[in-house]
Amino acid sequence: MTVTTDRCFPAACAQLGPIARDEPRSSAVARLCAMMQEAYERGARVVVFPELALTSFFPRWPLEGAALERWFETTMPNREVQPLFDLSRRLEMGFHLGYAEKTPEGRHFNTAIYVERGLILAKYRKIHLPGHREREDWRPFQHLEKRYFEKGDLGFPVFAGAGGRLGMCICNDRRWPETWRLLGLGGAEMVMLGYNTPQHYPPAPEHDHLQHFHNELSLMAGAYQNGLWVVAAAKAGHEEGCDLIGGSCIVAPTGEVVARTSTVTDEVITSCVDLDRCAEIRANIFDFAAHREPEDYGPICAPKG
Amino acid sequence: MTVTTDRCFPAACAQLGPIARDEPRSSAVARLCAMMQEAYERGARVVVFPELALTSFFPRWPLEGAALERWFETTMPNREVQPLFDLSRRLEMGFHLGYAEKTPEGRHFNTAIYVERGLILAKYRKIHLPGHREREDWRPFQHLEKRYFEKGDLGFPVFAGAGGRLGMCICNDRRWPETWRLLGLGGAEMVMLGYNTPQHYPPAPEHDHLQHFHNELSLMAGAYQNGLWVVAAAKAGHEEGCDLIGGSCIVAPTGEVVARTSTVTDEVITSCVDLDRCAEIRANIFDFAAHREPEDYGPICAPKG
Repeated sequence: MTVTTDRCFPAACAQLGPIARDEPRSSAVARLCAMMQEAYERGARVVVFPELALTSFFPRWPLEGAALERWFETTMPNREVQPLFDLSRRLEMGFHLGYAEKTPEGRHFNTAIYVERGLILAKYRKIHLPGHREREDWRPFQHLEKRYFEKGDLGFPVFAGAGGRLGMCICNDRRWPETWRLLGLGGAEMVMLGYNTPQHYPPAPEHDHLQHFHNELSLMAGAYQNGLWVVAAAKAGHEEGCDLIGGSCIVAPTGEVVARTSTVTDEVITSCVDLDRCAEIRANIFDFAAHREPEDYGPICAPKG
Repeated sequence: MTVTTDRCFPAACAQLGPIARDEPRSSAVARLCAMMQEAYERGARVVVFPELALTSFFPRWPLEGAALERWFETTMPNREVQPLFDLSRRLEMGFHLGYAEKTPEGRHFNTAIYVERGLILAKYRKIHLPGHREREDWRPFQHLEKRYFEKGDLGFPVFAGAGGRLGMCICNDRRWPETWRLLGLGGAEMVMLGYNTPQHYPPAPEHDHLQHFHNELSLMAGAYQNGLWVVAAAKAGHEEGCDLIGGSCIVAPTGEVVARTSTVTDEVITSCVDLDRCAEIRANIFDFAAHREPEDYGPICAPKG
């Protein structure tokens, strides 16, 4: 039996089934609260919710003006999300939540926050925005993240939380090894992320059957190559005509998947997370100080030509 | 049936079983020639041999002076390796070969070359040297690469060969995402590598059962995240008291393993390699120009503190 300590505890990953276009935030928040409660009852101290977890995945639609702005949160917490913060305080839980953020200056980001006991401890804004800027009518659905969001301006913060050092990234970020390396160099011991990944990839449909494989490959490689835990939560299932993959999972610093959802609905999975196990990798095969050779890595950071 | 063209052809991966400490280079070269011949008969245009393919893996022993120097090649080709070059010319084959190099100035490198039709087209010297510098008697075997070799001074060259753009790396390099990214940024379409990977990892024996998984995870992630083919050849089997993993494989730009050895002896595997398939990844999900964000990657290239 695993002993729960400050550094070794159950963590939960809360996958969301589809959110209908007309489903109010209050309904999504009620679903998230129910999963936080379940995670708590299963001993978890932290629960990870998906990207854009309060609404349907609106970048699939061409939108303008008020029809676009209504998908964004202008304050956090706000009245509709407050029950999640209240529950976090009452249960003494941490949670990771993705949502669309509009700043007081009118800037738009695809954002995630980490909250502990009702207090926001950290914020991340998505850096690797996928998709396209202009409407492309040949697509069965749009992916207008590059149009609707600005590139994140907060880097990849690593911060204290849950007895260790935590990091966040969002969806497409997980496919880029630079994301994981920056979090690893920052000392992250557990990375939390959410994703909305369609089963169908219009630019290369010959890879549709590989979506689960590519998701898990990216997560396993990021975990192993940086010796950190990964908790990755999907929005899954048939949402407004678009099939989203599930496959939410928890990955150990060895790269091993230690928990995985088996539905495309609201589903909580948990695994014991021992933050001290990061050292098995980082003090040995991937001892960065002993083995990295950054003087040879210049082109990785060179500006795009 | 796959049609062979300049850009779409069978490639071969030639795994070596163990080489005894007292086995002469002439014997190793005869084994390599037999595998090149087999690869040719199976339609391959290129064959990839392992790291340090001419001798036993000598960094496992503490050695000095002439007892150390005898493992290095001072010229390439030399009399003992010449049959491989001759066969390459006769069969119009390309081959990748790893060996220990001693330069005229007395510098030592863990080196790989790519040869086409008997001519050396490119050289790579291993950058990520694993192991340790001083003898450590608690280990069941040593891993003195950091003592016996200098860090490579040629970067990760990408060069024309086999109708496309080729790259090389060696063994531990494959575990580092920076290796693959540098090769991907250089435009490599097929990366060739060899490895000598013990089943037992003395600093973290609790991971011994994961050696195959970590090998394949590193290769699949490198291939997928950069949209390139990987041909990875092991030295395998029980060599001088040390078990080396096999698992030599060919990986497609989708990250899928398309061929894998099933022994720990001399074994040739082949797969059709279509270099034009790299575009499925590189023109879409990993379109570097559209989606990389190098201004955020600074810490990856920062000197070690």
